[in-house]
Amino acid sequence: MLAFENDYSEGAHPRILQRLLDTNLEQASGYGEDPYCASAIEKIKAACECPQAQIRFLVGGTQTNQTVIDSMLKSYEGVIAADTGHVSLHEAGAIEFTGHKVLALPQKDGKLAAKTVKDYMAKFYGDDSRDHMVFPGMVYISHPTEYGTLYTKEELTALSEVCKEYDLPLYLDGARLGYGLVSRGTDVTLPDIARLCDVFYIGGTKVGALCGEAVVFTKNNMPKQFLTLVKQHGALLAKGRLLGIQFDTLFTDNLYTEISKNAIALAELLRGILKEKGYKMYLETPTNQIFVVLENEKMRRLQQQVKISFWEALDETSSVVRFATSWQPRRKRWSSWRSCYRIVTE
Amino acid sequence: MLAFENDYSEGAHPRILQRLLDTNLEQASGYGEDPYCASAIEKIKAACECPQAQIRFLVGGTQTNQTVIDSMLKSYEGVIAADTGHVSLHEAGAIEFTGHKVLALPQKDGKLAAKTVKDYMAKFYGDDSRDHMVFPGMVYISHPTEYGTLYTKEELTALSEVCKEYDLPLYLDGARLGYGLVSRGTDVTLPDIARLCDVFYIGGTKVGALCGEAVVFTKNNMPKQFLTLVKQHGALLAKGRLLGIQFDTLFTDNLYTEISKNAIALAELLRGILKEKGYKMYLETPTNQIFVVLENEKMRRLQQQVKISFWEALDETSSVVRFATSWQPRRKRWSSWRSCYRIVTE
Amino acid sequence: MLAFENDYSEGAHPRILQRLLDTNLEQASGYGEDPYCASAIEKIKAACECPQAQIRFLVGGTQTNQTVIDSMLKSYEGVIAADTGHVSLHEAGAIEFTGHKVLALPQKDGKLAAKTVKDYMAKFYGDDSRDHMVFPGMVYISHPTEYGTLYTKEELTALSEVCKEYDLPLYLDGARLGYGLVSRGTDVTLPDIARLCDVFYIGGTKVGALCGEAVVFTKNNMPKQFLTLVKQHGALLAKGRLLGIQFDTLFTDNLYTEISKNAIALAELLRGILKEKGYKMYLETPTNQIFVVLENEKMRRLQQQVKISFWEALDETSSVVRFATSWQPRRKRWSSWRSCYRIVTE
Amino acid sequence: MLAFENDYSEGAHPRILQRLLDTNLEQASGYGEDPYCASAIEKIKAACECPQAQIRFLVGGTQTNQTVIDSMLKSYEGVIAADTGHVSLHEAGAIEFTGHKVLALPQKDGKLAAKTVKDYMAKFYGDDSRDHMVFPGMVYISHPTEYGTLYTKEELTALSEVCKEYDLPLYLDGARLGYGLVSRGTDVTLPDIARLCDVFYIGGTKVGALCGEAVVFTKNNMPKQFLTLVKQHGALLAKGRLLGIQFDTLFTDNLYTEISKNAIALAELLRGILKEKGYKMYLETPTNQIFVVLENEKMRRLQQQVKISFWEALDETSSVVRFATSWQPRRKRWSSWRSCYRIVTE
Repeated sequence: MLAFENDYSEGAHPRILQRLLDTNLEQASGYGEDPYCASAIEKIKAACECPQAQIRFLVGGTQTNQTVIDSMLKSYEGVIAADTGHVSLHEAGAIEFTGHKVLALPQKDGKLAAKTVKDYMAKFYGDDSRDHMVFPGMVYISHPTEYGTLYTKEELTALSEVCKEYDLPLYLDGARLGYGLVSRGTDVTLPDIARLCDVFYIGGTKVGALCGEAVVFTKNNMPKQFLTLVKQHGALLAKGRLLGIQFDTLFTDNLYTEISKNAIALAELLRGILKEKGYKMYLETPTNQIFVVLENEKMRRLQQQVKISFWEALDETSSVVRFATSWQPRRKRWSSWRSCYRIVTE
Repeated sequence: MLAFENDYSEGAHPRILQRLLDTNLEQASGYGEDPYCASAIEKIKAACECPQAQIRFLVGGTQTNQTVIDSMLKSYEGVIAADTGHVSLHEAGAIEFTGHKVLALPQKDGKLAAKTVKDYMAKFYGDDSRDHMVFPGMVYISHPTEYGTLYTKEELTALSEVCKEYDLPLYLDGARLGYGLVSRGTDVTLPDIARLCDVFYIGGTKVGALCGEAVVFTKNNMPKQFLTLVKQHGALLAKGRLLGIQFDTLFTDNLYTEISKNAIALAELLRGILKEKGYKMYLETPTNQIFVVLENEKMRRLQQQVKISFWEALDETSSVVRFATSWQPRRKRWSSWRSCYRIVTE
Repeated sequence: MLAFENDYSEGAHPRILQRLLDTNLEQASGYGEDPYCASAIEKIKAACECPQAQIRFLVGGTQTNQTVIDSMLKSYEGVIAADTGHVSLHEAGAIEFTGHKVLALPQKDGKLAAKTVKDYMAKFYGDDSRDHMVFPGMVYISHPTEYGTLYTKEELTALSEVCKEYDLPLYLDGARLGYGLVSRGTDVTLPDIARLCDVFYIGGTKVGALCGEAVVFTKNNMPKQFLTLVKQHGALLAKGRLLGIQFDTLFTDNLYTEISKNAIALAELLRGILKEKGYKMYLETPTNQIFVVLENEKMRRLQQQVKISFWEALDETSSVVRFATSWQPRRKRWSSWRSCYRIVTE
Repeated sequence: MLAFENDYSEGAHPRILQRLLDTNLEQASGYGEDPYCASAIEKIKAACECPQAQIRFLVGGTQTNQTVIDSMLKSYEGVIAADTGHVSLHEAGAIEFTGHKVLALPQKDGKLAAKTVKDYMAKFYGDDSRDHMVFPGMVYISHPTEYGTLYTKEELTALSEVCKEYDLPLYLDGARLGYGLVSRGTDVTLPDIARLCDVFYIGGTKVGALCGEAVVFTKNNMPKQFLTLVKQHGALLAKGRLLGIQFDTLFTDNLYTEISKNAIALAELLRGILKEKGYKMYLETPTNQIFVVLENEKMRRLQQQVKISFWEALDETSSVVRFATSWQPRRKRWSSWRSCYRIVTE
C-alpha cells in the first residue's frame, strides 16, 4: 500500500545507513563527545552562516521542545504558541509536565502573527494583576507549521522584532525544516533563521534520518550545563555517534536539502493533479503536506488503496484529509501510485 | 477610603476572633487532628446533608485548587476549565506547576456549559491522535464564577451528568460560595452541590475568615494519603486549629450564610442605584460582584474616593470596573458611601 | 494533660490576638501589600541590622523551604542538607516535588560541618562524571537543628566561607530561631545570621504566632518576581495582613525573644531535674527540646500523664523521648506538671 | 587506542545494521505500531517464558528509569534504591525531576539486601510521623549492579518476597542484563527475572544495539495509557521501527546472549592475567566490569595506551580503575591489546 500517511514511514537515507556501516567498529566517546558530532556541528554552523552557534543533538521532536523550552524559561514563565502548535496540542502535555504553561494564541493558517504577540504582551504589561499570571517568557513557532505553511521573511522579521522588544527568545521548531527551505515560494533561508531566531532545531526524523534533531543556539545563549539538563530530562543519548553520523551525512553535499526536494516535487505533482481534477484544497500549502477536501465516500475508497490521514470532518458529507509526501522518492511503487491517481481522478 | 476593591479587605468576623481568644490556651494536636476541626467537619457534613463526606481544611484558594486537582488527576490528564476560570488565568500557572495542563474551553458569562464539555469529549474520543494529547481528567467550575454569575440547578445537573458519562470528577471552586448560596435568584443549595459534585471547596477567606478553605470530597473519593499529599504540596498547616476554629464558628448558627447576605444586600442596593441612574451593567450578576461600564473620566474621579477594580477597557473612552461588596457591613463608613453615591449619580 | 509534645500546641501570644482584634475592621490590600507587613519588615530589618534585607511572609515551614529552595536553585541543581534535616526526612518529599534532589550529607548532633561540605564539593568537582550528577546549588541548615542543637559563631562562619568559596547560597531554616537566639550558651545573634547567611527564615508558627514565617533575603538576592513564584507554589496568602500583624507584634518590644525565654527557662528547669535524678540525656541540647533516655515501662506510664514524643528505640528495653517546651508559660497547669515530676523522679 | 572505557564505544552488531538496510524502504507505522516491534515483543515474551508480558521499547536507560518509575509511583511515593544505584547518583536527578525522592539505602558490593529493605519498611511503618515522610512505593535494583556484581537467585527471591509483603513493585534495571545472564557463576535466568520482578528492562544500548531498552511489565501491570505517559516524558520515538528491528534481531538465534559471551570471555581473560600478575581486585565481579587497584604512576602510563576509567582514589598513591569489556570482539586490535598486556604485566 502506498503511504502518504506521514513523512516518517521509511527508514533513513541509504547514505546514512552506509555511513553507519563504515564507522561501526570505530570506538568513540559517548554523549556527543565523538568526532562525528564535532564534524556535524561544524557543517551545520557553516550552513547556518553562524560561526558562534552552539549545537547539540537530541533524539526526537517532543523531547527537544520539552528540553529546550524548560531549559530556557524561568520557573514562573510560560511559552507563547499558536493554539494549533504542536506543543499546544500534540505533545501529551510534555511542556506542562515540566511546569510551564503553553500560552496559546490565535493563529492564521497555523502561523502566529507579530501583531498577535505584540498585542498580547501590551495587554499583559497593562494588566494590574499580571503578578498573579503566568509571565510570557518565550515564543514558539514552527516552520513549516502544523499546516505545512511557511512564514515569509517579512513575517519572521516582524516576529523577531517583537520578541526583541519584549526580551522574549524566539524558538523555531523545524521538525520539517528541510521541506520549508526548498519550497518554491519561500524567501526564508537557513542563515535567515539563524539570524532571526534565538534557538531553533533542524529536524532529522522527518527528513531522512532514523531519528535525531539538531538544536542550534544562535546567540551564544545555550543554557549553562545544558548536557546535565538534557540528561535530567531523560534525553541524553549514550551513543551520541548515532546522531552525529546522521547529521554529518545530511549536511554533506547538501543531502538535507536535496532529499527535501523529492518531497516537494512529489507534492507539487500530486497537488497539480488534484487541482486539475477540481478538488478543493482546504488550505494552500507550499510544502509536503496537502490538505484536500474529499467526500466521505471517496475518502473511504481511497483509504483502502493509500494510507492518508483523516484530518477533520468538514461537514456531514465531506472531510479534510492530509497527503504527506516524503524525502524518499518511492519510484518503485508506481503501480500503487497509479491506483491512487485513478481514484482521485475518477 | 471606602473599598469595593474586593471581598477580602477586612479581617475576620468578630465571632471568629472571639473564639480564637477563648480557645487560645487550650492545647491541641497539630495538622488538623484537633477537636475544632473534628467539630467543624461534623457541622459541614450536616449542612451539606452528606454524611459520608470527607472534609479537610487548607489555607488558600490557589493552594486548594493546586492540591486537589493534582491529587485527583493521573499524570497524563489535564483539567477542563472555562477559559476565564481562575485556574486558567490567575493562579500564576500553579496547576501547570504540578505537571497538568488546563484545558481551557469557551464559556458564557463565566460559565461552562454541559454541551461544551460533551462536544469536547466526543471530539477527543473521536480523534485518532488522542494518545498523543492530554487526556481530560476532571472538570473545574467556580460558583459563583469569576464574573459573579451562578449556575442554575438545571445547568449544574447537566454538567454533572456529562461528567458521569465520561467518568470525569466534577470539581467546584467555591471561593465565594456563601454569596452564591444566598443570592436571591439561585435554586442551588449546598446539599445540591454536595450531591452533584465529586469534590468542592467552601471558601472562608472571602467569606468572613482570616484564611481557610474547606475541601469536601462527597463520594468517599478522597485520595489515599491525602494528608501526605497536602504536606508534599507545602499546604499543610501546623496549627490546624486555626482553620478548624474558623469553620466551626462559620458553621454555627448559619453564620456563613448570614454574613453572606450582607454582601448581597449591599450589592443589590448599589446595583439598584446604578441602574436607576442609567449605568450600563457589563454583565448581569446576581452575587456580590458588579461589573459596570463607566466613562474613563468618571472612573478616574471615582477611584480617588473609592477603591474599585479596573476590569478591562471596553473602548477608547470607557471601561469596565468591578465593585465587590463583602460580608462585612461597613456601616460606620456611611460618609464615604455617600461620596461614592454622589459621584456615580451625578 | 500537660503537653511537652511540641511547641505548637497552643494558639498565639495574647498580644497578637489583641492586635488582630484592634485592626480587624481596617481595610487593607491583599497579598502582603498592607501597612502591617510594611511595618513588620522595617522592624525585622532593624533587628537583623540589615537595611538592605528583602523580607516576605509565608504561612508555614515546609512551604517556605519548598518555595525558597525551588526559587533559588537552577533546574539541574540540588540542595545540600544534613541527612537528619527537616527537608531530608519530614517534608513528605516537598523539595523533590519541585524537581530538586536533597543531597543528604552526614551530620553530628544534627549539625552539618563546614568540612563535610568542603570535602563533598571537592570530590564533586574532582569527579569526571559530574555532568551526569545533580549539581550542588545551595546549602540548607537549621538553627536550632532537628535535635535542638546550635551552631557556634565559629561553625557558622566556617560554613559561610565554604559556601562563598563554592558560590553556594547558605540558607538557614529558623523554624525555632527564637529559642536558638536566647539559649544561654549561644554566641550567634540575629545580625550574625543575617550577615553569614544568604537567606533564612524567622519562624513564627513555633514561637508565638498562629502561623507564619518571615523569609529574609540578606544580599539583595530575592529571586525576580518572587510574589509570582510564591503564588505558583500555592503559598501566597490573600490576607497577608494576618502575617504582617503577627510579625509586627512579635518584633515590637522584643516580644519574639522575650517569649522564647519562657521555653528555655522551662527546659532548663526540666533538664536540671532529670539530670539530678540520674536520667541520661541522649544528646546535650541547649534549646527547648530535651532528648532523654527512658526505660520503656517508665515511658509508657509517663505518656499516660504527659504528652511527650517517642523519638526512637535505643535498645530492647529503653527509648529516646523528646520533651519540647514552648513560649507559652503554662503556669496554671502546675498540678499536671507535679504528676510529671513525680513520675520522672520516682 | 584500545578502549576498555565502557561497553558502548562501538556502533551496533553487524546483523542489526544489515537488518536496518534490508527493511529500510518498507513503510511502517510510527510510535511502535510497526511489525518489527510486534515480532520483537513475541520473541522477548518467549525468551522470558512470560506470555502475559507487556513490552515497550524506549531509547535510553535514564529515560527508561525516569518514565517507568514516575509512571508506577503515586505522587507521594519514592523509590528505594541502593545508595550506589544509577538512579541515586548518575542520572542528573532525572527521578527527582519527576517529583519523586530516591530513598537511598546502604548496599554491599552494589547489591541491596532483602533484609535492608525489610528493616526499612518495618521502621517506616513503625514511625508515627510517617504521614509526613515520603512513602516507599517501589524497589529499584540493577542486575548487574553498578559494580558489575550479580544477585543470586536466592537473593533475588528474598527481595521479591519482601516486596510482595509490602506491596512494593520490584523493578530491575537491566542496562547490562546480557552480561549478567551469561556470567559463568550466575543461577539467575531471564525467566527467573520475569517471574520475580514486576517490571524490568533488557538493555540494548550496552549490549549490541545502537540504542534502545525493552521494558517488560510481567504482571499485566503496565500503567494505563503508557504510550501517552511515554510521550509526556519526551521518550516516544517516532520511528519505533528502529527499536523494533534491533530487538527483533537481538532476540533471533540468541544473538543477545551470544554476543554477551564475548564480553565475559574477554573479561575473564583479562581478569586472569591481572590476578596472575598479582594485581589486587577492588571487588570480585563476575561480569564485564573489572575493578582493579593500580599505583597512580602505572595508571597514568596505562591510560596513554588504553582507555580505562578512573573510578576513585584509594589512597595517596593508588587508585581504582575500571576495565569494561564489550560484546564486540575487537580481535583486529590485538597489537593494542598486547601493549596493554605489557604494561599491566611489567
